[in-house]
Amino acid sequence: MQILVAWIALVLPASQPTEVEKAIRAVLDAQVGAWNSGDIEGFMEGYWRSPKLTFSSGSDITRGWDATLQRYKKKYQSEGAEMGKLTFRDLEIEPLGPEAALVRGRWQLVRTKDKPGGVFSLILRKLPEGWRIVHDHTSGS
Amino acid sequence: MQILVAWIALVLPASQPTEVEKAIRAVLDAQVGAWNSGDIEGFMEGYWRSPKLTFSSGSDITRGWDATLQRYKKKYQSEGAEMGKLTFRDLEIEPLGPEAALVRGRWQLVRTKDKPGGVFSLILRKLPEGWRIVHDHTSGS
Repeated sequence: MQILVAWIALVLPASQPTEVEKAIRAVLDAQVGAWNSGDIEGFMEGYWRSPKLTFSSGSDITRGWDATLQRYKKKYQSEGAEMGKLTFRDLEIEPLGPEAALVRGRWQLVRTKDKPGGVFSLILRKLPEGWRIVHDHTSGS
Repeated sequence: MQILVAWIALVLPASQPTEVEKAIRAVLDAQVGAWNSGDIEGFMEGYWRSPKLTFSSGSDITRGWDATLQRYKKKYQSEGAEMGKLTFRDLEIEPLGPEAALVRGRWQLVRTKDKPGGVFSLILRKLPEGWRIVHDHTSGS
């Protein structure tokens, strides 16, 4: 029986991503592509363009799309800062209902002088404009 | 007109918490009560008792109720550690569908030697046993 199960696991294709998973992964892939082109505004397209967007990190909650953009610019585009090459990995996309999802994942930046990284938890909602991050909690080095 | 609006705001009761908000707040209140009685297992009652529970902090994701309990015990009940007095504040409970919700909030511990604190993002699901935290992302000092 165990051999049969192992054989089926080998022969059957891996479970296909759902439409929701594909749509959310496309949003995150576009973010990574924009970041690695040095385009922070493009990266920000993945976020809900609203004063209600929230971004939690350390002991702070940044509120609003504009404030989140400014936070990224200050941290990664000010004098002496470097955006580096971003990768997301180990993404786990978990629907929380028909129009919301949790994404757990890991982020890493490779820069000239360091390789900061950590984990994030994203809440996305299905909005008229598409799936967008409405809350981001990021931590790490 | 502004005076009328101000008058209405004074006369009308503040918006009542929904049933979902009351249920979730009760879970978190029970957690704080258990913590402040030195009862980590009681605190853990707020979490989904499942190997799929996830707890993200720093650069790590702890997986499973048992591992999360061990993490808390190691951090707050081992030699020289202190649980202290816990408070949660600025709770924002946001439904993500009929059976899921996001809670943003701040945590603070007051201990003999320090006052660590920070922010958390919780995902709760309505399970047969009640609302339970299925994912916790905590950061801070």
